[in-house]
Amino acid sequence: MSSDHHEAVSHSLAVSLLGLGNMGIAVGQTLLKKGHNLTVWNRTPSKAAPLVAEGATLADSPSACIAASDLVILFLLNDSATYDVLQGIQDLSNKTVLNLTSGTPDHVRKRAEYVQGLGASSYLHGAVMVPPGLVGLPDSLTLYSGPRAALESIATITSTLGAAKHVGEDPGAASLLDNALLSIMGGLFEGFVQSLALVGRASLPIDEVDFTSDLVVPLLRGFAGWLPRIAGQVKSKEYGAEVGSTLAMQLEALENIVVTGRELGLSRGMLGSMQETIREAVQRGKGGEGVAGLVGLLTEQ
Amino acid sequence: MSSDHHEAVSHSLAVSLLGLGNMGIAVGQTLLKKGHNLTVWNRTPSKAAPLVAEGATLADSPSACIAASDLVILFLLNDSATYDVLQGIQDLSNKTVLNLTSGTPDHVRKRAEYVQGLGASSYLHGAVMVPPGLVGLPDSLTLYSGPRAALESIATITSTLGAAKHVGEDPGAASLLDNALLSIMGGLFEGFVQSLALVGRASLPIDEVDFTSDLVVPLLRGFAGWLPRIAGQVKSKEYGAEVGSTLAMQLEALENIVVTGRELGLSRGMLGSMQETIREAVQRGKGGEGVAGLVGLLTEQ
Ligand SMILES: NC(=O)c1ccc[n+]([C@@H]2O[C@H](COP(=O)([O-])OP(=O)(O)OC[C@H]3O[C@@H](n4cnc5c(N)ncnc54)[C@H](OP(=O)(O)O)[C@@H]3O)[C@@H](O)[C@H]2O)c1
Ligand SMILES: NC(=O)c1ccc[n+]([C@@H]2O[C@H](COP(=O)([O-])OP(=O)(O)OC[C@H]3O[C@@H](n4cnc5c(N)ncnc54)[C@H](OP(=O)(O)O)[C@@H]3O)[C@@H](O)[C@H]2O)c1
Repeated sequence: MSSDHHEAVSHSLAVSLLGLGNMGIAVGQTLLKKGHNLTVWNRTPSKAAPLVAEGATLADSPSACIAASDLVILFLLNDSATYDVLQGIQDLSNKTVLNLTSGTPDHVRKRAEYVQGLGASSYLHGAVMVPPGLVGLPDSLTLYSGPRAALESIATITSTLGAAKHVGEDPGAASLLDNALLSIMGGLFEGFVQSLALVGRASLPIDEVDFTSDLVVPLLRGFAGWLPRIAGQVKSKEYGAEVGSTLAMQLEALENIVVTGRELGLSRGMLGSMQETIREAVQRGKGGEGVAGLVGLLTEQ
Repeated sequence: MSSDHHEAVSHSLAVSLLGLGNMGIAVGQTLLKKGHNLTVWNRTPSKAAPLVAEGATLADSPSACIAASDLVILFLLNDSATYDVLQGIQDLSNKTVLNLTSGTPDHVRKRAEYVQGLGASSYLHGAVMVPPGLVGLPDSLTLYSGPRAALESIATITSTLGAAKHVGEDPGAASLLDNALLSIMGGLFEGFVQSLALVGRASLPIDEVDFTSDLVVPLLRGFAGWLPRIAGQVKSKEYGAEVGSTLAMQLEALENIVVTGRELGLSRGMLGSMQETIREAVQRGKGGEGVAGLVGLLTEQ
């Protein structure tokens, strides 16, 4: 019972986990490693095998699974999968439900109502910001929203998953931030795909890996430091081309990217929405603004 | 004449600079600060005022401008501006021409032929990878392509602008890499615009600046480290979802981003090309691949 005890059995909890995809398996393994009492369910039961081998109990239905614990964690593909699973459950009295399944803020608010309608004592949404391989590392961030007290009551579990940040009582808050952060990842990937396609197709004395390590990574690391300045411009609605990169100039740059792709015979182009949005901004007389002006274009009535 | 002498007059060169937009002005100021002999021309002559005040000579035509120096630097908006200016020039005999104007690799190769047709002794293309405010700092990178010997002969000038990297004898090489790196910047901006629009429209206990500093910057810095692994997959055409983020899952994520934008009443959505490309990949049975698979989709015949 000493507090030095690393895997303090006194803190072990019963957890029911529904959904054993890439993420669910990673969460299950992390919980088992810390000695928690895990009951699992998955639509495709065979996927539970690695967890059962490490001590988890496989339930044969969602309701059998949730009956085993006061804390119920859902980790499914999407909103409709969430309801497919919840349909098999009639009663959630006294359960704390933590749903880690992605969705939109409205999806999450409706799930909260639905789950509370089944008697749950509290509903929390969580947005895990790392891929499966990093679940459970101390720096791996999960954003949570919903009642703070409920989140604190499961701190043993959330700290097992990594760093926990409460971002609002509105259950949709974590989902909003999740979608915002995934927008950035999506955009970065979109541009990276285009760049690797260009580099791969061209005859250059540099390959994809050196291009990325020597040029992309330093550029991106350096550039990250400029983003808060652009955010500051957006906050104060000052849309000038602060660092001297006007939308008019960026429209030329996007055009060059598209044409370069065509010169190299790429089968598709990326960045089309960016190009169209900048074009629209320039047509509306915002060619002298910077990228912050695009946020104005998206948000202003 | 001691080599410790910081602004060695013995190294000062005559430079003709055509194009005084945001970038041209920054380059001109940097050259003047190091004591070079600068002759400038711009379509709109009034923009030369700050450089003339610091000692530059304003020429009244492109040919008068180039007559003053053996090194001619062009820094115009785009390809057609380049020809508009070159049309006013009949002879480039014995000139080294450095064009910093963006374009596509094919644009740049054609410019090289055109300029050599006017008798230039060598043609170099440069892609400045920083905005105007950073021109001249030691870390500020410019990629150069064309004859290496010609580049070495103007090292005094290129080192004034920042760090110089020769990326190939093919004049189009620097332009290819420029377009590839700008793809990444464009994608990052595209996602960032969407994210700030979402955060600005939602009622959250966090503003755009804290969102960016506390969440976006660390995410991006950490994430940069994964990109070389994805590049390695692309290089070896192994398209599996290495870090456990499948395209099928990412298609759901993109859908959530779009719907979240709609829930908040954004006037436009970003990331459309990414969404369409992932959808196409999933339809072609690549839903289990990772983002590297998209590069395969763009490049494979
Ligand atoms: N992977 C990542 O990098 C990552 C990172 C952060 C957050 N996320 C989020 O985590 C969630 C899960 O992602 P993942 O990578 O684990 O996805 P995954 O590997 O595709 O797993 C999806 C899970 O949902 C289940 N499922 C799907 N449709 C169902 C239905 N109609 N009824 C019942 N169960 C259903 C699957 O069951 P079967 O096994 O029977 O198919 C599986 O357990 C997603 O919301 C995703 O956005 C993922
Ligand atoms: N700004 C950046 O962050 C950045 C960074 C790296 C590279 N670049 C590249 O640098 C180049 C210049 O960008 P910038 O930001 O300096 O653009 P800018 O401020 O818009 O300046 C454009 C320059 O081109 C001239 N010009 C345009 N059309 C012309 C024409 N038809 N005939 C003659 N001159 C013409 C303009 O003359 P007027 O003054 O008469 O209009 C001006 O001197 C672009 O290729 C851009 O892609 C920009």
